[in-house]
Amino acid sequence: MISLSLIGIGTGNPDHLTMQARRAMNGADLILLPRKGEAKADLLDLRRGICVQVLERPVRVVEFDLPVRSANGDYLGAVNDWHDAIARTWSREIARNLPQGGHLALLVWGDPSLYDSTLRIAARLQDDGMDLGIEVVPGITSVQALTAAHAIALNRLAEPFVVTTGRQLRDRGWPQGTNVVVVMLDGGCAFETLEPEGIEIWWGAYLGMEHEALIHGPLPEVANRIVEARKALRERHGWIMDTYLMHRTFNDQTGAGG
Amino acid sequence: MISLSLIGIGTGNPDHLTMQARRAMNGADLILLPRKGEAKADLLDLRRGICVQVLERPVRVVEFDLPVRSANGDYLGAVNDWHDAIARTWSREIARNLPQGGHLALLVWGDPSLYDSTLRIAARLQDDGMDLGIEVVPGITSVQALTAAHAIALNRLAEPFVVTTGRQLRDRGWPQGTNVVVVMLDGGCAFETLEPEGIEIWWGAYLGMEHEALIHGPLPEVANRIVEARKALRERHGWIMDTYLMHRTFNDQTGAGG
Repeated sequence: MISLSLIGIGTGNPDHLTMQARRAMNGADLILLPRKGEAKADLLDLRRGICVQVLERPVRVVEFDLPVRSANGDYLGAVNDWHDAIARTWSREIARNLPQGGHLALLVWGDPSLYDSTLRIAARLQDDGMDLGIEVVPGITSVQALTAAHAIALNRLAEPFVVTTGRQLRDRGWPQGTNVVVVMLDGGCAFETLEPEGIEIWWGAYLGMEHEALIHGPLPEVANRIVEARKALRERHGWIMDTYLMHRTFNDQTGAGG
Repeated sequence: MISLSLIGIGTGNPDHLTMQARRAMNGADLILLPRKGEAKADLLDLRRGICVQVLERPVRVVEFDLPVRSANGDYLGAVNDWHDAIARTWSREIARNLPQGGHLALLVWGDPSLYDSTLRIAARLQDDGMDLGIEVVPGITSVQALTAAHAIALNRLAEPFVVTTGRQLRDRGWPQGTNVVVVMLDGGCAFETLEPEGIEIWWGAYLGMEHEALIHGPLPEVANRIVEARKALRERHGWIMDTYLMHRTFNDQTGAGG
Protein backbone atom coordinates (compact mmCIF):
# COMPACT_ATOMS: atom_id res chain seq x y z
CA MET A 1 0.00 0.00 0.00
CA ILE A 2 1.34 3.38 -1.07
CA SER A 3 0.01 6.51 0.55
CA LEU A 4 0.68 9.40 -1.82
CA SER A 5 0.65 13.04 -0.73
CA LEU A 6 0.44 15.56 -3.56
CA ILE A 7 1.72 18.68 -1.86
CA GLY A 8 1.12 22.13 -3.30
CA ILE A 9 4.24 24.15 -2.52
CA GLY A 10 3.34 27.51 -4.06
CA THR A 11 5.47 29.14 -6.71
CA GLY A 12 8.96 28.94 -5.31
CA ASN A 13 8.76 31.23 -2.29
CA PRO A 14 9.26 28.88 0.69
CA ASP A 15 7.16 31.31 2.77
CA HIS A 16 4.14 30.29 0.67
CA LEU A 17 4.21 26.79 2.15
CA THR A 18 1.38 26.03 4.54
CA MET A 19 1.81 24.29 7.88
CA GLN A 20 -0.06 21.34 6.37
CA ALA A 21 2.51 21.13 3.54
CA ARG A 22 5.42 21.22 5.99
CA ARG A 23 3.82 18.49 8.07
CA ALA A 24 3.10 16.30 5.03
CA MET A 25 6.71 16.64 3.84
CA ASN A 26 8.03 15.69 7.26
CA GLY A 27 5.63 12.75 7.48
CA ALA A 28 6.84 11.17 4.23
CA ASP A 29 9.14 8.15 3.86
CA LEU A 30 10.21 9.30 0.42
CA ILE A 31 10.06 12.53 -1.59
CA LEU A 32 10.55 12.20 -5.36
CA LEU A 33 11.93 15.27 -7.16
CA PRO A 34 11.72 15.45 -10.98
CA ARG A 35 14.76 16.54 -13.00
CA LYS A 36 13.55 18.50 -16.05
CA GLY A 37 16.89 19.09 -17.77
CA GLU A 38 19.49 21.83 -17.71
CA ALA A 39 17.22 24.68 -18.77
CA LYS A 40 14.94 24.20 -15.78
CA ALA A 41 17.65 23.40 -13.22
CA ASP A 42 16.53 26.51 -11.26
CA LEU A 43 13.21 24.82 -10.54
CA LEU A 44 14.92 21.69 -9.24
CA ASP A 45 17.16 23.88 -7.08
CA LEU A 46 14.10 25.61 -5.64
CA ARG A 47 12.54 22.27 -4.73
CA ARG A 48 15.82 21.05 -3.23
CA GLY A 49 16.06 24.27 -1.23
CA ILE A 50 12.53 23.83 0.09
CA CYS A 51 13.39 20.29 1.23
CA VAL A 52 16.50 21.53 3.03
CA GLN A 53 14.54 24.32 4.70
CA VAL A 54 11.44 22.34 5.66
CA LEU A 55 12.61 18.84 6.59
CA GLU A 56 13.19 18.42 10.30
CA ARG A 57 13.87 14.68 10.16
CA PRO A 58 15.81 12.49 7.72
CA VAL A 59 13.31 11.98 4.89
CA ARG A 60 14.76 10.22 1.86
CA VAL A 61 14.80 12.55 -1.16
CA VAL A 62 15.34 10.87 -4.54
CA GLU A 63 15.68 12.67 -7.87
CA PHE A 64 14.55 11.14 -11.15
CA ASP A 65 14.60 12.20 -14.80
CA LEU A 66 11.19 13.33 -15.96
CA PRO A 67 10.34 11.98 -19.44
CA VAL A 68 10.26 14.62 -22.15
CA ARG A 69 7.04 15.48 -24.00
CA SER A 70 7.04 14.73 -27.70
CA ALA A 71 6.66 17.76 -29.95
CA ASN A 72 5.14 15.52 -32.66
CA GLY A 73 1.51 14.77 -33.41
CA ASP A 74 -1.53 16.45 -31.93
CA TYR A 75 -1.21 18.33 -28.65
CA LEU A 76 -3.64 16.30 -26.52
CA GLY A 77 -2.29 13.01 -27.84
CA ALA A 78 1.26 14.05 -27.03
CA VAL A 79 0.24 15.14 -23.52
CA ASN A 80 -1.54 11.84 -22.87
CA ASP A 81 1.48 9.82 -24.08
CA TRP A 82 3.70 11.95 -21.86
CA HIS A 83 1.49 11.31 -18.81
CA ASP A 84 1.66 7.56 -19.56
CA ALA A 85 5.46 7.77 -19.64
CA ILE A 86 5.56 9.71 -16.35
CA ALA A 87 3.26 7.14 -14.72
CA ARG A 88 5.67 4.35 -15.77
CA THR A 89 8.58 6.32 -14.32
CA TRP A 90 6.77 6.83 -11.02
CA SER A 91 5.97 3.10 -10.88
CA ARG A 92 9.61 2.25 -11.38
CA GLU A 93 10.80 4.68 -8.72
CA ILE A 94 8.17 3.45 -6.25
CA ALA A 95 9.13 -0.20 -6.85
CA ARG A 96 12.79 0.67 -6.40
CA ASN A 97 12.55 2.96 -3.39
CA LEU A 98 9.42 1.82 -1.52
CA PRO A 99 9.30 -1.93 -2.24
CA GLN A 100 7.41 -2.60 1.02
CA GLY A 101 5.01 0.33 0.52
CA GLY A 102 4.98 3.52 2.56
CA HIS A 103 4.32 7.23 2.36
CA LEU A 104 5.39 8.96 -0.83
CA ALA A 105 5.29 12.74 -1.26
CA LEU A 106 5.47 14.73 -4.49
CA LEU A 107 6.00 18.48 -4.42
CA VAL A 108 3.62 20.15 -6.86
CA TRP A 109 4.21 23.64 -8.20
CA GLY A 110 1.25 25.84 -7.18
CA ASP A 111 -1.77 23.72 -6.29
CA PRO A 112 -2.41 20.13 -7.44
CA SER A 113 -5.89 21.08 -8.71
CA LEU A 114 -4.92 23.82 -11.18
CA TYR A 115 -3.48 22.96 -14.61
CA ASP A 116 -1.36 20.26 -13.07
CA SER A 117 -1.14 16.64 -14.15
CA THR A 118 -0.12 14.80 -11.01
CA LEU A 119 -3.70 13.78 -10.11
CA ARG A 120 -4.24 12.41 -13.62
CA ILE A 121 -0.95 10.52 -13.51
CA ALA A 122 -1.73 9.10 -10.07
CA ALA A 123 -5.10 7.89 -11.42
CA ARG A 124 -3.18 5.92 -14.08
CA LEU A 125 -1.31 4.06 -11.34
CA GLN A 126 -4.61 3.22 -9.63
CA ASP A 127 -6.07 2.06 -12.97
CA ASP A 128 -3.02 -0.19 -13.37
CA GLY A 129 -3.91 -1.86 -10.08
CA MET A 130 -1.55 -0.11 -7.66
CA ASP A 131 -2.97 0.09 -4.12
CA LEU A 132 -2.62 3.84 -3.88
CA GLY A 133 -4.33 6.24 -1.46
CA ILE A 134 -4.17 9.89 -2.48
CA GLU A 135 -4.12 12.93 -0.20
CA VAL A 136 -4.06 16.45 -1.68
CA VAL A 137 -2.47 19.35 0.20
CA PRO A 138 -3.51 22.68 -1.35
CA GLY A 139 -0.90 25.31 -2.17
CA ILE A 140 -0.74 28.94 -3.26
CA THR A 141 -1.10 29.18 -7.07
CA SER A 142 0.67 31.53 -9.46
CA VAL A 143 -2.70 33.24 -9.99
CA GLN A 144 -2.83 34.10 -6.28
CA ALA A 145 0.81 35.18 -6.33
CA LEU A 146 -0.08 37.41 -9.31
CA THR A 147 -3.04 39.12 -7.66
CA ALA A 148 -1.15 39.48 -4.37
CA ALA A 149 1.86 41.06 -6.10
CA HIS A 150 -0.39 43.56 -7.92
CA ALA A 151 -2.67 43.94 -4.85
CA ILE A 152 -5.78 43.47 -6.97
CA ALA A 153 -8.93 41.37 -6.86
CA LEU A 154 -9.36 38.54 -9.33
CA ASN A 155 -13.06 39.13 -9.96
CA ARG A 156 -15.11 42.27 -10.30
CA LEU A 157 -17.88 42.76 -7.77
CA ALA A 158 -20.32 39.83 -8.07
CA GLU A 159 -19.12 38.99 -11.62
CA PRO A 160 -17.87 35.68 -13.02
CA PHE A 161 -14.43 35.13 -14.51
CA VAL A 162 -12.77 32.59 -16.79
CA VAL A 163 -9.47 30.79 -16.29
CA THR A 164 -8.02 29.52 -19.53
CA THR A 165 -4.78 28.63 -21.32
CA GLY A 166 -2.72 30.55 -23.86
CA ARG A 167 -3.57 27.90 -26.44
CA GLN A 168 -7.34 28.29 -25.86
CA LEU A 169 -7.14 32.10 -25.95
CA ARG A 170 -5.25 31.93 -29.23
CA ASP A 171 -7.64 29.40 -30.81
CA ARG A 172 -10.96 30.68 -29.49
CA GLY A 173 -10.45 34.38 -28.74
CA TRP A 174 -11.83 36.23 -25.74
CA PRO A 175 -14.11 33.84 -23.81
CA GLN A 176 -17.83 34.49 -24.13
CA GLY A 177 -19.93 35.83 -21.30
CA THR A 178 -17.20 37.42 -19.18
CA ASN A 179 -15.10 40.56 -18.94
CA VAL A 180 -12.41 39.00 -16.73
CA VAL A 181 -9.93 36.37 -17.95
CA VAL A 182 -6.93 34.69 -16.34
CA VAL A 183 -4.45 33.07 -18.73
CA MET A 184 -2.07 30.29 -17.68
CA LEU A 185 0.33 27.99 -19.53
CA ASP A 186 0.91 30.55 -22.27
CA GLY A 187 4.02 29.45 -24.14
CA GLY A 188 3.91 32.61 -26.27
CA CYS A 189 2.05 35.84 -25.79
CA ALA A 190 -1.49 34.85 -26.78
CA PHE A 191 -2.83 38.29 -25.76
CA GLU A 192 -1.28 39.57 -29.00
CA THR A 193 -4.06 37.81 -30.93
CA LEU A 194 -6.75 39.97 -29.22
CA GLU A 195 -8.09 43.33 -30.33
CA PRO A 196 -6.37 45.26 -27.49
CA GLU A 197 -8.68 48.29 -27.17
CA GLY A 198 -10.49 48.42 -23.84
CA ILE A 199 -8.40 45.67 -22.21
CA GLU A 200 -6.30 46.18 -19.06
CA ILE A 201 -3.64 43.59 -18.24
CA TRP A 202 -1.80 42.60 -15.06
CA TRP A 203 1.15 40.38 -16.01
CA GLY A 204 3.70 38.59 -13.85
CA ALA A 205 6.62 36.20 -14.34
CA TYR A 206 8.65 34.18 -11.81
CA LEU A 207 5.88 35.04 -9.33
CA GLY A 208 6.93 34.68 -5.72
CA MET A 209 10.55 34.12 -6.76
CA GLU A 210 13.64 36.24 -6.56
CA HIS A 211 13.35 37.44 -10.17
CA GLU A 212 9.64 38.33 -9.99
CA ALA A 213 8.70 40.71 -12.82
CA LEU A 214 5.43 42.66 -13.01
CA ILE A 215 3.85 44.81 -15.71
CA HIS A 216 0.43 46.46 -15.55
CA GLY A 217 -1.44 48.82 -17.85
CA PRO A 218 -3.80 49.19 -20.79
CA LEU A 219 -3.01 46.40 -23.25
CA PRO A 220 -2.48 48.76 -26.23
CA GLU A 221 0.23 50.53 -24.22
CA VAL A 222 2.03 47.65 -22.53
CA ALA A 223 1.65 44.67 -24.91
CA ASN A 224 4.98 45.29 -26.61
CA ARG A 225 6.73 45.91 -23.29
CA ILE A 226 5.53 42.52 -22.04
CA VAL A 227 6.60 40.74 -25.24
CA GLU A 228 10.07 42.26 -25.00
CA ALA A 229 10.46 41.72 -21.25
CA ARG A 230 9.39 38.10 -21.65
CA LYS A 231 11.94 37.50 -24.40
CA ALA A 232 14.79 39.17 -22.49
CA LEU A 233 13.96 37.38 -19.24
CA ARG A 234 13.75 33.99 -20.91
CA GLU A 235 17.14 34.54 -22.48
CA ARG A 236 18.63 35.63 -19.16
CA HIS A 237 17.22 32.78 -17.05
CA GLY A 238 16.91 30.00 -19.64
CA TRP A 239 13.20 29.50 -18.87
CA ILE A 240 10.14 31.55 -17.98
CA MET A 241 6.79 30.92 -16.31
CA ASP A 242 4.29 33.75 -16.51
CA THR A 243 0.59 34.32 -16.06
CA TYR A 244 -1.75 37.26 -16.49
CA LEU A 245 -5.15 38.68 -15.68
CA MET A 246 -7.11 40.82 -18.12
CA HIS A 247 -10.19 42.98 -17.51
CA ARG A 248 -12.25 44.26 -20.39
CA THR A 249 -13.83 47.63 -19.68
CA PHE A 250 -16.86 47.28 -21.94
CA ASN A 251 -19.62 44.72 -22.27
CA ASP A 252 -19.81 42.35 -25.19
CA GLN A 253 -22.96 41.33 -27.01
CA THR A 254 -23.47 38.20 -24.91
CA GLY A 255 -24.62 40.17 -21.89
CA ALA A 256 -21.51 39.87 -19.73
CA GLY A 257 -20.83 42.25 -16.89
CA GLY A 258 -23.36 44.31 -15.01
CA MET B 1 1.10 56.32 7.48
CA ILE B 2 -0.79 53.05 7.83
CA SER B 3 0.70 49.88 6.43
CA LEU B 4 -2.15 47.43 5.88
CA SER B 5 -1.62 43.67 5.47
CA LEU B 6 -4.58 41.79 4.04
CA ILE B 7 -3.79 38.27 5.13
CA GLY B 8 -5.46 35.26 3.52
CA ILE B 9 -5.95 32.72 6.30
CA GLY B 10 -7.58 29.87 4.41
CA THR B 11 -10.94 28.47 5.40
CA GLY B 12 -10.62 27.92 9.12
CA ASN B 13 -8.04 25.15 9.32
CA PRO B 14 -5.04 26.80 11.03
CA ASP B 15 -2.80 24.34 9.15
CA HIS B 16 -3.74 26.16 5.93
CA LEU B 17 -1.87 29.27 7.05
CA THR B 18 1.34 29.95 5.16
CA MET B 19 4.62 30.98 6.79
CA GLN B 20 4.14 34.38 5.16
CA ALA B 21 0.75 34.77 6.86
CA ARG B 22 2.17 33.80 10.27
CA ARG B 23 4.99 36.28 9.82
CA ALA B 24 2.65 39.09 8.74
CA MET B 25 0.41 38.49 11.75
CA ASN B 26 3.38 38.58 14.10
CA GLY B 27 4.69 41.73 12.42
CA ALA B 28 1.50 43.72 13.00
CA ASP B 29 0.88 46.39 15.63
CA LEU B 30 -2.85 45.78 15.51
CA ILE B 31 -5.16 43.04 14.24
CA LEU B 32 -8.81 43.99 13.75
CA LEU B 33 -11.35 41.16 13.98
CA PRO B 34 -14.92 41.73 12.73
CA ARG B 35 -17.89 40.61 14.83
CA LYS B 36 -20.70 39.45 12.51
CA GLY B 37 -23.39 38.76 15.08
CA GLU B 38 -24.50 35.72 17.05
CA ALA B 39 -25.21 33.45 14.09
CA LYS B 40 -21.64 33.67 12.83
CA ALA B 41 -19.92 33.59 16.23
CA ASP B 42 -18.17 30.37 15.14
CA LEU B 43 -16.27 32.33 12.50
CA LEU B 44 -15.11 34.90 15.04
CA ASP B 45 -14.04 32.06 17.33
CA LEU B 46 -12.00 30.51 14.50
CA ARG B 47 -10.20 33.81 13.90
CA ARG B 48 -9.60 34.26 17.63
CA GLY B 49 -8.23 30.73 17.80
CA ILE B 50 -5.88 31.38 14.90
CA CYS B 51 -4.55 34.50 16.68
CA VAL B 52 -3.94 32.53 19.88
CA GLN B 53 -2.19 29.76 17.97
CA VAL B 54 -0.08 31.94 15.66
CA LEU B 55 0.94 35.00 17.65
CA GLU B 56 4.34 34.64 19.29
CA ARG B 57 4.52 38.20 20.59
CA PRO B 58 1.96 40.53 22.17
CA VAL B 59 0.09 41.90 19.13
CA ARG B 60 -2.96 43.98 20.03
CA VAL B 61 -6.16 42.27 18.81
CA VAL B 62 -9.28 44.46 18.72
CA GLU B 63 -12.77 43.31 17.82
CA PHE B 64 -15.33 45.58 16.17
CA ASP B 65 -18.93 45.21 15.03
CA LEU B 66 -19.19 44.80 11.27
CA PRO B 67 -22.03 46.89 9.79
CA VAL B 68 -24.95 44.84 8.49
CA ARG B 69 -25.85 44.83 4.81
CA SER B 70 -29.25 46.25 3.96
CA ALA B 71 -31.69 43.79 2.43
CA ASN B 72 -33.47 46.68 0.66
CA GLY B 73 -32.97 48.06 -2.83
CA ASP B 74 -30.93 46.55 -5.62
CA TYR B 75 -28.20 44.04 -4.79
CA LEU B 76 -25.17 45.95 -6.13
CA GLY B 77 -26.34 49.22 -4.59
CA ALA B 78 -26.80 47.55 -1.21
CA VAL B 79 -23.33 45.97 -1.44
CA ASN B 80 -21.72 49.32 -2.32
CA ASP B 81 -23.47 51.09 0.59
CA TRP B 82 -22.33 48.29 2.86
CA HIS B 83 -18.71 48.65 1.73
CA ASP B 84 -18.93 52.41 2.39
CA ALA B 85 -20.17 51.70 5.90
CA ILE B 86 -17.37 49.18 6.54
CA ALA B 87 -14.77 51.69 5.29
CA ARG B 88 -16.09 54.27 7.78
CA THR B 89 -15.88 51.67 10.56
CA TRP B 90 -12.27 50.79 9.64
CA SER B 91 -11.38 54.52 9.62
CA ARG B 92 -12.83 54.94 13.09
CA GLU B 93 -11.00 51.90 14.48
CA ILE B 94 -7.72 52.99 12.89
CA ALA B 95 -8.05 56.54 14.31
CA ARG B 96 -8.85 55.09 17.72
CA ASN B 97 -6.24 52.32 17.88
CA LEU B 98 -3.38 53.52 15.65
CA PRO B 99 -3.51 57.33 16.05
CA GLN B 100 0.23 57.62 15.25
CA GLY B 101 0.06 55.21 12.29
CA GLY B 102 1.54 51.73 12.23
CA HIS B 103 1.03 48.25 10.85
CA LEU B 104 -2.56 47.01 10.68
CA ALA B 105 -3.45 43.42 9.77
CA LEU B 106 -6.83 42.07 8.69
CA LEU B 107 -7.46 38.34 8.50
CA VAL B 108 -9.29 37.50 5.30
CA TRP B 109 -11.22 34.27 4.84
CA GLY B 110 -9.67 32.34 1.91
CA ASP B 111 -7.63 34.68 -0.31
CA PRO B 112 -8.05 38.48 -0.56
CA SER B 113 -8.34 38.25 -4.37
CA LEU B 114 -11.33 35.92 -4.62
CA TYR B 115 -14.87 37.21 -4.01
CA ASP B 116 -13.69 39.24 -1.10
CA SER B 117 -14.26 42.94 -0.51
CA THR B 118 -11.34 44.02 1.65
CA LEU B 119 -9.28 45.32 -1.30
CA ARG B 120 -12.26 47.40 -2.50
CA ILE B 121 -12.86 48.76 0.99
CA ALA B 122 -9.17 49.61 1.44
CA ALA B 123 -9.29 51.50 -1.88
CA ARG B 124 -12.09 53.64 -0.43
CA LEU B 125 -9.80 54.69 2.45
CA GLN B 126 -7.08 55.64 -0.07
CA ASP B 127 -9.64 57.58 -2.11
CA ASP B 128 -10.62 59.43 1.08
CA GLY B 129 -7.01 60.57 1.44
CA MET B 130 -5.67 58.10 3.99
CA ASP B 131 -1.93 57.43 3.57
CA LEU B 132 -2.32 53.68 3.26
CA GLY B 133 0.13 51.12 1.85
CA ILE B 134 -1.40 47.74 1.03
CA GLU B 135 0.30 44.35 1.12
CA VAL B 136 -1.60 41.20 0.14
CA VAL B 137 -0.70 37.82 1.60
CA PRO B 138 -2.31 35.01 -0.42
CA GLY B 139 -4.23 32.24 1.33
CA ILE B 140 -5.82 28.89 0.50
CA THR B 141 -9.33 29.40 -0.90
CA SER B 142 -12.45 27.33 -0.31
CA VAL B 143 -12.18 26.22 -3.96
CA GLN B 144 -8.77 24.72 -3.24
CA ALA B 145 -10.04 23.17 -0.01
CA LEU B 146 -12.90 21.68 -2.07
CA THR B 147 -10.70 20.12 -4.76
CA ALA B 148 -8.19 18.89 -2.15
CA ALA B 149 -10.95 17.26 -0.06
CA HIS B 150 -12.35 15.48 -3.13
CA ALA B 151 -8.82 14.85 -4.54
CA ILE B 152 -9.85 16.13 -7.97
CA ALA B 153 -8.51 18.60 -10.51
CA LEU B 154 -10.33 21.88 -11.06
CA ASN B 155 -9.89 21.94 -14.83
CA ARG B 156 -10.06 19.23 -17.45
CA LEU B 157 -6.91 18.68 -19.49
CA ALA B 158 -6.06 21.92 -21.33
CA GLU B 159 -9.65 23.23 -21.00
CA PRO B 160 -10.89 26.53 -19.58
CA PHE B 161 -13.25 26.87 -16.61
CA VAL B 162 -15.54 29.53 -15.18
CA VAL B 163 -15.79 30.72 -11.59
CA THR B 164 -19.10 32.36 -10.85
CA THR B 165 -21.62 33.12 -8.10
CA GLY B 166 -24.91 31.45 -7.19
CA ARG B 167 -26.72 34.63 -8.21
CA GLN B 168 -25.12 34.65 -11.68
CA LEU B 169 -25.79 30.94 -12.23
CA ARG B 170 -29.43 31.47 -11.29
CA ASP B 171 -29.85 34.55 -13.51
CA ARG B 172 -27.81 33.51 -16.54
CA GLY B 173 -27.77 29.70 -16.53
CA TRP B 174 -24.76 27.53 -17.38
CA PRO B 175 -21.92 29.81 -18.58
CA GLN B 176 -21.22 29.78 -22.30
CA GLY B 177 -18.12 28.21 -23.77
CA THR B 178 -17.15 25.89 -20.91
CA ASN B 179 -17.99 22.50 -19.45
CA VAL B 180 -16.49 23.23 -16.02
CA VAL B 181 -18.01 25.67 -13.52
CA VAL B 182 -17.13 26.58 -9.93
CA VAL B 183 -19.90 28.26 -7.93
CA MET B 184 -19.21 30.43 -4.89
CA LEU B 185 -21.36 32.69 -2.68
CA ASP B 186 -24.47 30.64 -3.34
CA GLY B 187 -27.02 31.62 -0.70
CA GLY B 188 -29.43 28.99 -1.99
CA CYS B 189 -28.87 25.98 -4.21
CA ALA B 190 -28.63 27.61 -7.63
CA PHE B 191 -27.74 24.28 -9.26
CA GLU B 192 -31.44 23.43 -8.90
CA THR B 193 -32.19 25.88 -11.73
CA LEU B 194 -30.09 23.83 -14.20
CA GLU B 195 -31.22 20.98 -16.38
CA PRO B 196 -29.30 18.33 -14.37
CA GLU B 197 -28.74 15.64 -17.05
CA GLY B 198 -25.07 15.15 -17.88
CA ILE B 199 -23.78 17.21 -14.95
CA GLU B 200 -21.51 15.83 -12.22
CA ILE B 201 -21.15 17.82 -8.99
CA TRP B 202 -18.54 17.94 -6.21
CA TRP B 203 -20.02 19.86 -3.27
CA GLY B 204 -18.48 20.86 0.05
CA ALA B 205 -19.48 22.87 3.12
CA TYR B 206 -17.41 24.08 6.11
CA LEU B 207 -14.37 23.16 4.00
CA GLY B 208 -11.21 22.69 6.01
CA MET B 209 -13.18 22.94 9.26
CA GLU B 210 -14.22 20.41 11.85
CA HIS B 211 -17.71 19.95 10.38
CA GLU B 212 -16.56 19.57 6.76
CA ALA B 213 -19.29 17.91 4.67
CA LEU B 214 -18.77 16.51 1.15
CA ILE B 215 -21.16 15.14 -1.47
CA HIS B 216 -20.22 13.98 -4.96
CA GLY B 217 -22.16 12.38 -7.78
CA PRO B 218 -24.30 12.89 -10.88
CA LEU B 219 -26.46 15.96 -10.27
CA PRO B 220 -29.75 14.15 -11.03
CA GLU B 221 -28.91 11.66 -8.25
CA VAL B 222 -27.44 13.90 -5.54
CA ALA B 223 -29.16 17.31 -5.98
CA ASN B 224 -31.86 16.55 -3.40
CA ARG B 225 -29.32 15.09 -0.98
CA ILE B 226 -27.32 18.31 -1.15
CA VAL B 227 -30.42 20.49 -0.67
CA GLU B 228 -31.42 18.49 2.39
CA ALA B 229 -27.92 18.25 3.87
CA ARG B 230 -27.46 22.00 3.42
CA LYS B 231 -30.75 22.75 5.21
CA ALA B 232 -30.02 20.37 8.10
CA LEU B 233 -26.44 21.63 8.53
CA ARG B 234 -27.52 25.26 8.50
CA GLU B 235 -30.08 24.53 11.18
CA ARG B 236 -27.54 22.66 13.28
CA HIS B 237 -24.70 25.24 13.04
CA GLY B 238 -26.68 28.46 12.58
CA TRP B 239 -24.78 29.32 9.37
CA ILE B 240 -23.31 27.58 6.34
CA MET B 241 -20.64 28.35 3.74
CA ASP B 242 -20.48 25.99 0.80
CA THR B 243 -19.04 25.85 -2.69
CA TYR B 244 -19.17 23.41 -5.56
CA LEU B 245 -17.60 22.35 -8.82
CA MET B 246 -19.62 20.99 -11.74
CA HIS B 247 -18.43 19.18 -14.87
CA ARG B 248 -20.71 18.78 -17.83
CA THR B 249 -20.05 15.58 -19.77
CA PHE B 250 -21.23 16.78 -23.17
CA ASN B 251 -20.34 19.73 -25.39
CA ASP B 252 -22.68 22.64 -25.92
CA GLN B 253 -23.32 24.39 -29.20
CA THR B 254 -20.75 27.10 -28.53
CA GLY B 255 -17.83 24.78 -29.16
CA ALA B 256 -16.67 24.20 -25.58
CA GLY B 257 -14.46 21.27 -24.66
CA GLY B 258 -12.32 19.25 -27.00
